[in-house]
Amino acid sequence: MRVSVKSLLLAGMLALPLPALAQAGPSAAEVAAMRDTALNNDTVAWDVVEGLTTEVGQRLAATEAEARARSWAVKKLTALGFKNVHIETYTMPVWLRGAEEASVIAPFPQKLTLAALGNSGATGPNGLDAEVVYFPTFADLQAAPAESVKGKIVFVSHAMQATQDGSHYGQFGAARRQGPAVAAQKGAAAIIIRSIGTDYHRNPHTGVTNWPQGVAPIPAAALTLPDAEQLERILKRGQPVKLHLLLTPKFAGTAESGNVVADVPGSDPSAGIVLVGGHLDSWDLGTGAIDDGAGVAITAAAARYFLAPGKQPRRTIRVVWFGAEEPGGFGGEAYAKAHANERHVLAGESDFGADRIWRFQTSLPASSQAINDRIATALAPIGIEKGRTPEGDFGTDVGPTVRTGVAGVSLSQSGLRYFDYHHTPDDTLDKIDPAQLRQNVAAWTAVLAVAANAPEDIAAVPSKD
Amino acid sequence: MRVSVKSLLLAGMLALPLPALAQAGPSAAEVAAMRDTALNNDTVAWDVVEGLTTEVGQRLAATEAEARARSWAVKKLTALGFKNVHIETYTMPVWLRGAEEASVIAPFPQKLTLAALGNSGATGPNGLDAEVVYFPTFADLQAAPAESVKGKIVFVSHAMQATQDGSHYGQFGAARRQGPAVAAQKGAAAIIIRSIGTDYHRNPHTGVTNWPQGVAPIPAAALTLPDAEQLERILKRGQPVKLHLLLTPKFAGTAESGNVVADVPGSDPSAGIVLVGGHLDSWDLGTGAIDDGAGVAITAAAARYFLAPGKQPRRTIRVVWFGAEEPGGFGGEAYAKAHANERHVLAGESDFGADRIWRFQTSLPASSQAINDRIATALAPIGIEKGRTPEGDFGTDVGPTVRTGVAGVSLSQSGLRYFDYHHTPDDTLDKIDPAQLRQNVAAWTAVLAVAANAPEDIAAVPSKD
Repeated sequence: MRVSVKSLLLAGMLALPLPALAQAGPSAAEVAAMRDTALNNDTVAWDVVEGLTTEVGQRLAATEAEARARSWAVKKLTALGFKNVHIETYTMPVWLRGAEEASVIAPFPQKLTLAALGNSGATGPNGLDAEVVYFPTFADLQAAPAESVKGKIVFVSHAMQATQDGSHYGQFGAARRQGPAVAAQKGAAAIIIRSIGTDYHRNPHTGVTNWPQGVAPIPAAALTLPDAEQLERILKRGQPVKLHLLLTPKFAGTAESGNVVADVPGSDPSAGIVLVGGHLDSWDLGTGAIDDGAGVAITAAAARYFLAPGKQPRRTIRVVWFGAEEPGGFGGEAYAKAHANERHVLAGESDFGADRIWRFQTSLPASSQAINDRIATALAPIGIEKGRTPEGDFGTDVGPTVRTGVAGVSLSQSGLRYFDYHHTPDDTLDKIDPAQLRQNVAAWTAVLAVAANAPEDIAAVPSKD
Repeated sequence: MRVSVKSLLLAGMLALPLPALAQAGPSAAEVAAMRDTALNNDTVAWDVVEGLTTEVGQRLAATEAEARARSWAVKKLTALGFKNVHIETYTMPVWLRGAEEASVIAPFPQKLTLAALGNSGATGPNGLDAEVVYFPTFADLQAAPAESVKGKIVFVSHAMQATQDGSHYGQFGAARRQGPAVAAQKGAAAIIIRSIGTDYHRNPHTGVTNWPQGVAPIPAAALTLPDAEQLERILKRGQPVKLHLLLTPKFAGTAESGNVVADVPGSDPSAGIVLVGGHLDSWDLGTGAIDDGAGVAITAAAARYFLAPGKQPRRTIRVVWFGAEEPGGFGGEAYAKAHANERHVLAGESDFGADRIWRFQTSLPASSQAINDRIATALAPIGIEKGRTPEGDFGTDVGPTVRTGVAGVSLSQSGLRYFDYHHTPDDTLDKIDPAQLRQNVAAWTAVLAVAANAPEDIAAVPSKD
């Protein structure tokens, strides 16, 4: 490449007034101004989540609905001004919901409301009739002798409560993630669980369950909380309880899924990429508004502020709308593999709805604690505290990237009502409060303003091993 | 009948100390004590509503489920000590729910969640496809020319809000009660309405619709609020919206329904009957906990206090668990007809859930205002104000009796969340707060303590004509 004297002179001239600004990044006041513009005026996030949930609706992984969502996403991100907007595909196994019905045959005939778990086996078209065996907790099922379970419909309950940090999902969610495999290994005919949720509506909470190698899937479904408690009351009467269960989901081979990638190109390619996003797929029962239409909307809306004239960041901000998170993080794995040779310096996702963010956490290395402090300064005025570096990998989608040594950032929304709607038919647009959504956009805007413009290098996170 | 001297003497002796008490009825302190016993300790109402919803579940009018509920009721009321417990049957038309599915075919393919209205017509087994024509209010549908509606699926919305007195149900409920007939008369292929409700869950609100003589039923269903707003957003994009609709309910001739009647016999047969109750039937989507398991439980629990030794009331307290209220008040009509020759002096029903009562109203005649005042005194300490004599006939079940000139009593529960659950799959036991349920029992106990024991005669209500 030829370099002209003129351009050297120009660079030298520009270098005189600019370095102070460029090296320092935006001032605290400048970050605050960007944050408050988003807080008070952002309409992009609502526009994205409203559009995606209305014009596409549910977006089950590796189905034509998810493909329609990718087309929609490319169009929308391009219209918003993002660069390098494209789809990166991969193939994955497909699971499709079928019919789902349950009823108490004896002693008190009545219907129950449930939904198959993702990867559930099927009962066959005529369903199955079997006696129920009840376990108050997943641990009780684990401890049960196989002969008490064999040929029966296992019913596992739990005592999950709403928590601000959503932590109950980890412990109590084991009934869904592992319960079916444990029941299958003990010879159960089927398993039903109390929905991993905290609401009392007749909307079951689906979600993925996992079958270890060699364990054949059995029918596995979640009762709504009112139905689970009804069944518990019936069981407490002490008579044998017999159910009819019809579940006809199917595994349908492999199909294409994909990530949608969009960039805000930075001015300094050597400074590394700041990766943010959410997941584009959803479960099939609702329209995927809080899980995770909100996340793709929030992170894209925040990144978009840096597309405006004069706002180009030092680092490239990459927005990824990941595919197929729900059935097992296929999109996140595919992204990390495809982009292993690019330098990422910070990665974070929004995948916990759109209620107010109350805490942020990073795993920025010690050498970047000044960046962490500047983020803290920018977020405190909108009610967000600085938390400690968390356990874990900052989410299913960015996890595979974070595990390569990239610092993570987490902005924690309140989880107090998230599990009322999570994975249910109730995950619809009306659950999003536009004012809280804007607070989310404001927080991510501030994080990006600081991190993508930080004059310091952001080093890799040292391995803990 | 022979009357011995001894019994005359005994009567005379007893007559000396007792008349003052008997004629005065219980003192305010005695009424308060009974009220507070119920408020603090009642377990009967919970036992009844828990048992009925658990052991029977839904109780659609004129079905075998409602018949099972009557058997359950006779057993329960007998076990509680009521006298003269029996079933009074009548026949009525039967309507049964079938399959119900809806989806947007164009421009944005997706499923919608709905439920057929009671008395809905059917689409046939293959469903129907038609364009949607949207009316923001029932008045807009009424004003529409027939040619704008003919052959289309009418979609009627409304702006119902939660109100403490539930009054919005009257005005906004017209879309359900009359909307289908208006749409049918204009030649619509089908009608879907925004559920007559106030919640944002994917649980549709069913309820009866009425077809005037000569109007053939068309398919008629209610979308959940999230689905109705989704459809509105799709319509606002301005493209023609086409739906597929499958509804296969059926009219199944006539069948038996019935009222369950139980008495607390009074000491003075000439003083007239105080009639209280609720309705035993429910819609088929939930388990009929707030509508109206609570009502039968509350009124029976209150009446039961007068079965205790030494508590016999002056007037007979009659508890009726009416059948078939939902499809059109068949039980209330049958009761009034069957008991036209008995003297009723006061009638009231509990059919608005189990949240706190905040107001009472009566149509006691001017000659009985002292009774009204004593009721007010008894209810004020538990947060219940004295309201004016209301319009109307005090409810669907006691209405036919009240219209014969019997004074009515109404105890108004808060309606602020009633229409979140009303007629939905969400009408389940968990929606009942035991403490508020006890406040209901306490209030009815106080009303009965005053009214059933009032020494004054309670005259008929003068006709307003």
